[in-house]
Amino acid sequence: MAREDFSFFHSLRVRWAEADMQGIVFNGHYLTYFDVAFTEYWRSTGLPSVLQQARDGREMFARKASIEYHAPARFDDVLDIGVRCAGFGRTSVRFVLEIYLGDQHLIAGELVYVYADTAARKGVPFPDDWRAVLTRFEKIAPAST
Amino acid sequence: MAREDFSFFHSLRVRWAEADMQGIVFNGHYLTYFDVAFTEYWRSTGLPSVLQQARDGREMFARKASIEYHAPARFDDVLDIGVRCAGFGRTSVRFVLEIYLGDQHLIAGELVYVYADTAARKGVPFPDDWRAVLTRFEKIAPAST
Amino acid sequence: MAREDFSFFHSLRVRWAEADMQGIVFNGHYLTYFDVAFTEYWRSTGLPSVLQQARDGREMFARKASIEYHAPARFDDVLDIGVRCAGFGRTSVRFVLEIYLGDQHLIAGELVYVYADTAARKGVPFPDDWRAVLTRFEKIAPAST
Amino acid sequence: MAREDFSFFHSLRVRWAEADMQGIVFNGHYLTYFDVAFTEYWRSTGLPSVLQQARDGREMFARKASIEYHAPARFDDVLDIGVRCAGFGRTSVRFVLEIYLGDQHLIAGELVYVYADTAARKGVPFPDDWRAVLTRFEKIAPAST
Repeated sequence: MAREDFSFFHSLRVRWAEADMQGIVFNGHYLTYFDVAFTEYWRSTGLPSVLQQARDGREMFARKASIEYHAPARFDDVLDIGVRCAGFGRTSVRFVLEIYLGDQHLIAGELVYVYADTAARKGVPFPDDWRAVLTRFEKIAPAST
Repeated sequence: MAREDFSFFHSLRVRWAEADMQGIVFNGHYLTYFDVAFTEYWRSTGLPSVLQQARDGREMFARKASIEYHAPARFDDVLDIGVRCAGFGRTSVRFVLEIYLGDQHLIAGELVYVYADTAARKGVPFPDDWRAVLTRFEKIAPAST
Repeated sequence: MAREDFSFFHSLRVRWAEADMQGIVFNGHYLTYFDVAFTEYWRSTGLPSVLQQARDGREMFARKASIEYHAPARFDDVLDIGVRCAGFGRTSVRFVLEIYLGDQHLIAGELVYVYADTAARKGVPFPDDWRAVLTRFEKIAPAST
Repeated sequence: MAREDFSFFHSLRVRWAEADMQGIVFNGHYLTYFDVAFTEYWRSTGLPSVLQQARDGREMFARKASIEYHAPARFDDVLDIGVRCAGFGRTSVRFVLEIYLGDQHLIAGELVYVYADTAARKGVPFPDDWRAVLTRFEKIAPAST
């Protein structure tokens, strides 16, 4: 995977409170960055937000997350976070994310969500039309600003 | 105010993620520590929890917070956080908090809450029996463990 | 104080992780927002960054912070944070901050910093030329983007 | 893997600020919990702390983290976090972690660290005596309090 494989990026600047005593971003904050970037990705697709999903009684729950640390981000760095839909299961959807500082690839990761009944927390089929929207989006997503 | 003025303390250890590049706790985290200690203080009084309050349709909302930094806490420090009810208004209640590392006084602060209708967020009289419980508690609170 | 009294604003969007069970931003995060906005304010003045200050052996340490909560911010809100230098002591400098959601005033606060020797943490006179820069900046600061 | 497979546990209570609008712990905080539990695990082994390692010029850097979400933790839950050394590479060491609420298994995860030169961030052989200490520790670790 490389920077060119992502058609969607969200950028943010590392906050003072996010860097630790070693001067590098604390590991857990990368999941927050992933979440922020994923929220913007999802907004761009036009699909129902998590708040709307909750009102509809079916929503996407995080099932799995993983992070690989290649090089650390530091205070004040402006990071570009690529998000890309990488596949579907019957009830699940998988995204890959990568964080760049300019051309340097710092972090790779993935997020897997299960689409489930809000009350029962039991998986239900991921909607066909969402699948279609995401597939189409991956081909045409413009860069985030 | 001194350590002896508090009859309630809650202790916690500073997490790695809470210390910044200067090796000291980031300022905002002291409000989290205040909140954790206040939650334990409130639990000790036996008064209805914030979740119970929300169900009852009237709850305590933060109105004001202040912090004075005398000396910084560092990673791995075990801090003692004193909490004390310091006075009442018609709809409000005020707490003072102090953070100690052993005998050293690091941080002082206060939290002011307004008791209000959950939906309207408009102040209603702070309950007389809560006032009585808090007044009594200040005289008899055992040390937290 | 009103929106018109600030010539510097920094904007940010509330993250999912920053809203609590009541659907509103947890109190402690406002100090993080203050810190983010203050970092951008300071960058705009052109004065030495906190990292540069540390290398110079004299830096600004937080001495006091206070927050008043008028109305809560919520997930996904885009907030405008005004920062303004509000006065000087011999070794200290005071800033007032206000958070707006459109025209609605949500939060007010202040931050007081002491300029001090990094090792001894003892106050030293706040530099006259910094004083001049800040005074001038308040009159000409362009809006942040 | 089951609760019985861990000889080391660290317990902590979920903070208000860590639960999101759905009333469940935000995903990123589980990495903070992992880090807190790992810090206590490492302290129990008696091996050099990360601060000591940094002074020695060689330290453990996070290389990989993963989390699987089986069921969510909620505000005020007291969680038991099991930590276990699960294997070694030439320059790396792998830990598995699981989070329990009573008997209910909520979260599983792993952390992989590389032992590396602090300045060059290049892997160096994981010390044989540390390997021995960890192997021995896994057989005799008493429960954390």
